[in-house]
Amino acid sequence: MNPLNLFRRRKAFPQTPPTIKAILFDTFGTTVDWQSSMIAHAERLGEEKGINADWPGLIDAWRAQYQPAIKPVREGKRPWTGFDTLHREQLDKILPKFGAAQRLSSVDRDLLTHGWHYLDPWLDVFPALGHLKHDYIIGPLSNGTTRQMVDLTRWGHLPWDVVFGADMFRTYKPDKKIYLGAAAFLSLEPAEILMVAAHNQDLEAAKSHGFKTCFVRRPTEDPKPTGTYNFVVDDFKDLALALKAF
Amino acid sequence: MNPLNLFRRRKAFPQTPPTIKAILFDTFGTTVDWQSSMIAHAERLGEEKGINADWPGLIDAWRAQYQPAIKPVREGKRPWTGFDTLHREQLDKILPKFGAAQRLSSVDRDLLTHGWHYLDPWLDVFPALGHLKHDYIIGPLSNGTTRQMVDLTRWGHLPWDVVFGADMFRTYKPDKKIYLGAAAFLSLEPAEILMVAAHNQDLEAAKSHGFKTCFVRRPTEDPKPTGTYNFVVDDFKDLALALKAF
Repeated sequence: MNPLNLFRRRKAFPQTPPTIKAILFDTFGTTVDWQSSMIAHAERLGEEKGINADWPGLIDAWRAQYQPAIKPVREGKRPWTGFDTLHREQLDKILPKFGAAQRLSSVDRDLLTHGWHYLDPWLDVFPALGHLKHDYIIGPLSNGTTRQMVDLTRWGHLPWDVVFGADMFRTYKPDKKIYLGAAAFLSLEPAEILMVAAHNQDLEAAKSHGFKTCFVRRPTEDPKPTGTYNFVVDDFKDLALALKAF
Repeated sequence: MNPLNLFRRRKAFPQTPPTIKAILFDTFGTTVDWQSSMIAHAERLGEEKGINADWPGLIDAWRAQYQPAIKPVREGKRPWTGFDTLHREQLDKILPKFGAAQRLSSVDRDLLTHGWHYLDPWLDVFPALGHLKHDYIIGPLSNGTTRQMVDLTRWGHLPWDVVFGADMFRTYKPDKKIYLGAAAFLSLEPAEILMVAAHNQDLEAAKSHGFKTCFVRRPTEDPKPTGTYNFVVDDFKDLALALKAF
């Protein structure tokens, strides 16, 4: 007797490829366009405050601080610290290089930091997730906090079945605890999970722990796949087509 | 400057009552009707197997094992063990009292246990959550596993922003780690969270840790509120009306 006869409301999992049951998505750069969203937030704040600065340059410099900021936490050299705190620290660090932007008050800086909770999904994301959700469990597996995932989910109306924030594991990708922890929460073998990211580092780690992998090309992220992955796609729609989820 | 001017796509949180930002829902009995769903699963299985038994009695006896089963885990006398394992053990324990039902094979028992992942929401749940989601972060805070929450979410098309399973905290309600852990993941004060349950024990615990509370009357659960809560409602629609979320 097949469970699908007993619980017959839901469509069967698709048989191609046979073992994928869940798809987990990196968030920043892969699912959401942090760059144009944060530039828009900063420009709007600058306008309200009458501050003229190189906002696009500031946002790129801010993002460039990301890897150095999480490294000591991941390596256990710094106690668990979430993205909100790290982003705020790194903003203070880079502001002196951006002229008039230094005039942002402490409250303004908090507000701009909070902008990382309100980032637009790439345009292909919303419709493709709707299709993928029919056949797979879908959720973000992110270095952001759970609350960030909640706010991004609400902002983008993303139809996730579950959200995983780095604070659930108290470390950062590519620490294996995150990949294996998410698999345990889903009661799935790593090989039953497809990790989707625009970053080779993330995919190499996921692959080394047995996940299936999909590189997605995004203009702001790694320019090309440097490893061998199960899928290389142009966007989430392309992935949905490859998985025959349309 | 108000953050809502900067991030202006989303509607402001409602001002009545002022501090609630998230609503967390107990699952079994509160959000989903475990009784009629599990009876339907068991009856269907019995029919397929040609086994005639008191299925409603069996389901009630099974559920009655729930509190004694989780207690040693919550008290640290037994290592972390999730609902799937506990449910399966308790089924073996009660089956001898139900005549022909003992003929269920090990595979049948696994399958029936898996039925706890496929339970129908009470009829008021789906439309009311759609309204509540506009104004509040919504999610289950359950003693079930994360994967159970994922399966129930997909089965009932529930529009949660986040799901919390007991395996994220490795203990069971009413252990305070669950309530305070969820508040931490949401970056909210306990007073900003409304706990909704059909169980006095759950609400008393939530209240003692600073949560706001709502007792919902459900035919299968605690017959009446025995404490003082912020809201006492007949169903989730009643709650949405009380919160002016319509």
